[in-house]
Amino acid sequence: MAEWNTEVTSIKENEILVRGYPIEQLMEKTSFSDAVYLILKGELPGAGESRIFGAILTSSLDHGVTPPSVLATLNSTSTGAPLNAAVASGILSINRFHGGAVEDAMKMLMEAAKATGGTADRDKVHAFVEKKLAEEYRFPGLGHRVHTADPRSIKMKALVEKHLDAKKRLYVDIACLIEEEIEKIKGKKLPVNVDGMIGALLLGLEFPPEIANGIFMISRVPGLIAHFVEERKTQKPMRNIDQKSAVYTGKPKRNIE
Amino acid sequence: MAEWNTEVTSIKENEILVRGYPIEQLMEKTSFSDAVYLILKGELPGAGESRIFGAILTSSLDHGVTPPSVLATLNSTSTGAPLNAAVASGILSINRFHGGAVEDAMKMLMEAAKATGGTADRDKVHAFVEKKLAEEYRFPGLGHRVHTADPRSIKMKALVEKHLDAKKRLYVDIACLIEEEIEKIKGKKLPVNVDGMIGALLLGLEFPPEIANGIFMISRVPGLIAHFVEERKTQKPMRNIDQKSAVYTGKPKRNIE
Amino acid sequence: MAEWNTEVTSIKENEILVRGYPIEQLMEKTSFSDAVYLILKGELPGAGESRIFGAILTSSLDHGVTPPSVLATLNSTSTGAPLNAAVASGILSINRFHGGAVEDAMKMLMEAAKATGGTADRDKVHAFVEKKLAEEYRFPGLGHRVHTADPRSIKMKALVEKHLDAKKRLYVDIACLIEEEIEKIKGKKLPVNVDGMIGALLLGLEFPPEIANGIFMISRVPGLIAHFVEERKTQKPMRNIDQKSAVYTGKPKRNIE
Amino acid sequence: MAEWNTEVTSIKENEILVRGYPIEQLMEKTSFSDAVYLILKGELPGAGESRIFGAILTSSLDHGVTPPSVLATLNSTSTGAPLNAAVASGILSINRFHGGAVEDAMKMLMEAAKATGGTADRDKVHAFVEKKLAEEYRFPGLGHRVHTADPRSIKMKALVEKHLDAKKRLYVDIACLIEEEIEKIKGKKLPVNVDGMIGALLLGLEFPPEIANGIFMISRVPGLIAHFVEERKTQKPMRNIDQKSAVYTGKPKRNIE
Repeated sequence: MAEWNTEVTSIKENEILVRGYPIEQLMEKTSFSDAVYLILKGELPGAGESRIFGAILTSSLDHGVTPPSVLATLNSTSTGAPLNAAVASGILSINRFHGGAVEDAMKMLMEAAKATGGTADRDKVHAFVEKKLAEEYRFPGLGHRVHTADPRSIKMKALVEKHLDAKKRLYVDIACLIEEEIEKIKGKKLPVNVDGMIGALLLGLEFPPEIANGIFMISRVPGLIAHFVEERKTQKPMRNIDQKSAVYTGKPKRNIE
Repeated sequence: MAEWNTEVTSIKENEILVRGYPIEQLMEKTSFSDAVYLILKGELPGAGESRIFGAILTSSLDHGVTPPSVLATLNSTSTGAPLNAAVASGILSINRFHGGAVEDAMKMLMEAAKATGGTADRDKVHAFVEKKLAEEYRFPGLGHRVHTADPRSIKMKALVEKHLDAKKRLYVDIACLIEEEIEKIKGKKLPVNVDGMIGALLLGLEFPPEIANGIFMISRVPGLIAHFVEERKTQKPMRNIDQKSAVYTGKPKRNIE
Repeated sequence: MAEWNTEVTSIKENEILVRGYPIEQLMEKTSFSDAVYLILKGELPGAGESRIFGAILTSSLDHGVTPPSVLATLNSTSTGAPLNAAVASGILSINRFHGGAVEDAMKMLMEAAKATGGTADRDKVHAFVEKKLAEEYRFPGLGHRVHTADPRSIKMKALVEKHLDAKKRLYVDIACLIEEEIEKIKGKKLPVNVDGMIGALLLGLEFPPEIANGIFMISRVPGLIAHFVEERKTQKPMRNIDQKSAVYTGKPKRNIE
Repeated sequence: MAEWNTEVTSIKENEILVRGYPIEQLMEKTSFSDAVYLILKGELPGAGESRIFGAILTSSLDHGVTPPSVLATLNSTSTGAPLNAAVASGILSINRFHGGAVEDAMKMLMEAAKATGGTADRDKVHAFVEKKLAEEYRFPGLGHRVHTADPRSIKMKALVEKHLDAKKRLYVDIACLIEEEIEKIKGKKLPVNVDGMIGALLLGLEFPPEIANGIFMISRVPGLIAHFVEERKTQKPMRNIDQKSAVYTGKPKRNIE
């Protein structure tokens, strides 16, 4: 059998190297989200990238019971599925239309950046937006069916200003200009949503668009498991799951001290 | 349709509360692994718990190409699967025998703790071990087919000493006594492996055994994605994947500065 | 690498033997359902068994859009899943509570047959039913949330009378006696439903209970695919799928000539 | 909630209509493979179509332990997966490269038929083949890594001659001409393989290319279940599954009487 190569992890007796780093050093000196960044990109993040990447993972942790991935997990759980079948069901509902907006936004922002020569130049963005609107293009990563001022994208913008240099925030700047120019042209506010912001940030961190749904999966699996545990503990099997009848009865709003 | 309750996440326009905390606060003030801890347990971890839980997640991030979950992902990728099908395949290979040793170890340690009256008393552990060995019981969470001195369990023991109080480390202490007493009785060293150590720590953090495989999934999904990306990028479709022919060609050993 | 054995299919150049039979003979001389019977049981069915097994497979082909497996497939399809992810989602919702009633009914009927000494003796069945009811046992395979006179179980009973000898219909006879004795004791009609009838028939054909859900999967996968195709063709992505709003607009009732 | 339509199955109390036909009539008067044809196409097959469709389903029932879908099922089974997780794993390994050759062959044959004006004209096929070879096109559905004279495609050709009229066998005729003209031009025999033949037949039965992998799934799921049962019964968990070490120890070759 011919040899084949892997660059992810080296396994020898009593030695595990992830992208070259001994796993016990990662366990002690880095956060889990930095280790995730490392295994996906091959290098550890700098301080600013670390903050941004952690915020991205946390931002998609859960969005209540209405997303299709959660409904899939609940539906499977309700038939008596073991944890892995229920989680796999959820993952099989993360596709082009659920989760996929990040990848779409990344491709759109790459096209925009090409059109502007890699600058956040307002006039060039204006021209790009005008051309796209003339083609009746529907911009991915702008607008949200629930949130008009999404706390996640607002916080991301604040974190970007604090933690990323001009080069790494290019795509965020372009995304914000697109939002502003659409408003100018159409008189309608379509704020950059969390998908658009994540897409802009992943480009700034030099992730390829194909990996976007993977990062969403990493972020959402804990949420799916939390819903599995709750369903198993509180509901009878084979119930008819109507997302619109769910009522939040958890902890009231509280602040991190 | 009758109402039903959920305590995980509250969704209102422009407000997302995970277990009561606004998600934008979690994005800024906590790590992703703390947010995972929160959504699974309902409360944020203390400082020591945070360190230990992060180390647990990092420790299972990847173990090369031989685990069945990775082989499942590679096999599916090689047939042309999209990312979600490949990751779901991997998750469907995390079951009682792959990943399950943590849950088994947790149940064994709970039984041991019951037998010792909740103390790390050497004589009582000795009696427990003797009784089990007489029943030809095979202790889960001890011994490893590759590692005789697993760097992950060694590091965990060190972190426990630094970060956990006596109550939270009870199960780790019992696990280590079990290792020592087995050696005394049988003259054979069966070190607490990474599964046994994770099980002992999850009990100390008051996670129920049923959630163990879920935590393994959270930890391993990034590894599955890294292997998917590599397979897609470097291999032809429909290849015969022989784990024993894999050669590590990645970064040489390096230290975190 | 040590050799390991398989008894399912032999593959040589230009020769494919399924359980010993050349596949080209199966293609020409047997029906697909007979070939399924063969691969699962190791032998081809006799004429009566063939009729019954085919009827079992056809009976579970589809039950509209409300079963959890179909909802799972629709939900995944609506997110943009490819066919295999959508079908796998459906299969991951076939578990203990959806599909599982056949296996439960088989186990109950095996217990009943043990209690009656392997005979369809009314008095012994009466005693079994009485004992079970005293334990507040809920008989699997009896009663249905939609059908009071399920056309599938009625037809199966008719086919059994025509095609199976006394030995092969033992479990059907016991199931019918259980229905009658429950009615006598409780004054309430709980007809043997399609799951109970399939369970009784699978036992008569000497299938083990563990395989019941597998037979349901074989039968239902074509239905899942039909729903996938329809969803993809007629619906927009990311719709909110409410099973209770579905309206049948297909072919009106017609008879096979 | 707005109504939505389904044309697959009508469910009322005590009435189940699949594409309009009462299910109890299908159970008695049609074979399972005819019922599968019905639910996928909307109409029952004629006598010749019925024979051909049944032969298609039977032909892909199993191909030993080497296909990726079977390896995925075995791998998952070996980790302790329940039946549905193991079968879902197998299905998630049916993709563009495994199973997908039928769809590719269908598209190629549709292109060929367009080029020949819908006729099996040798000269026009010759021109089509010449043009494609000049583009270094690799014809899907021709050649096989194991079989030089695949018993399945040979039998299919015989069944076609017996059961299909000229119109329904157009694509089979074109496929055979392609095989012959390639041999003339390149001096190399690349026989129409089972995927090419199935593709040609599905086109003759007017199935769309997108459904090809679905038909492969319907056909293969029973095989996956047979391998699951065997693995569970005969092997220890967590074994290293090397397809090349499998030895067939089943029934010796036998004929259907």
